[in-house]
Amino acid sequence: MTIILGIDPGLGTTGWGVIRYQGNRLSHIANGQIRTNAKAPLPSRLLELDTAVAAIVTDYRPDAAAIEEIYVNKNPQTTLKLVQARGGLLLSLARAGLGVGEYAPRLIKKAIVGTGAAEKVQIDAMVQRLLPGVQIAGPDAADALAVAITHAHLAGHPR
Amino acid sequence: MTIILGIDPGLGTTGWGVIRYQGNRLSHIANGQIRTNAKAPLPSRLLELDTAVAAIVTDYRPDAAAIEEIYVNKNPQTTLKLVQARGGLLLSLARAGLGVGEYAPRLIKKAIVGTGAAEKVQIDAMVQRLLPGVQIAGPDAADALAVAITHAHLAGHPR
Repeated sequence: MTIILGIDPGLGTTGWGVIRYQGNRLSHIANGQIRTNAKAPLPSRLLELDTAVAAIVTDYRPDAAAIEEIYVNKNPQTTLKLVQARGGLLLSLARAGLGVGEYAPRLIKKAIVGTGAAEKVQIDAMVQRLLPGVQIAGPDAADALAVAITHAHLAGHPR
Repeated sequence: MTIILGIDPGLGTTGWGVIRYQGNRLSHIANGQIRTNAKAPLPSRLLELDTAVAAIVTDYRPDAAAIEEIYVNKNPQTTLKLVQARGGLLLSLARAGLGVGEYAPRLIKKAIVGTGAAEKVQIDAMVQRLLPGVQIAGPDAADALAVAITHAHLAGHPR
């Protein structure tokens, strides 16, 4: 059995999802969204994310983590804070002793839906189908569950 | 008296410098360069930086920190890892309870040399002059001392 923590990184909102992978079966454990104080300075917001991730690790004891890769878009200055948030989150996961799988958005779509050009609504529907009974906290939590499922399919180290 | 930790962020090499600011006088305490293992995965390298910064904070007990701002250049993919390193370093400083001043490269040049268009060699010469007797570990350590001096000049909170 492997417990996987998926992270959809963001400075304002970071999605997270914890799943169990046993044999060839997936099940949902928990998911949520971490929101940071938009008025606080960047270091404080990174610390908010770190504190929340540390609590999730303490609560659910994951064996591995997985996180979305980020690409810089046409306006790179707007992604600078997002990328720094991702750096802080990677450090939080490393401090927790977790190996971290990194997956490109297209690869996640392909792993979940079967095509790298899948729409977001298709991803959400497949996450719902793959994790029966899941209540998803929001769009970032759905993306976090998707990256955790991708890690289970592509790297699901049995314990 | 204020002890200031300056950081020049980088994934491969992060420069650091610690200075004392008392009355209107600056003095050098320590400086160095943290190198990370280029063959290690990104989360491990962020953890190497974090561990080194935590040791510097334990050794020198700074009251404040200062760090260079980063701008994304024409090839943003190449700066993605640098920006994530900066995010990890900001988190390390926040975890240490330090307020963090952020300064643009041009502002640092202006604070040290008097013009935002100063050459690197002029910065180094002024750092040498402002911190008599300093032995500088390398170019990134020089930049770290420069950002610490900038913070002393612009925000040097007396203790």
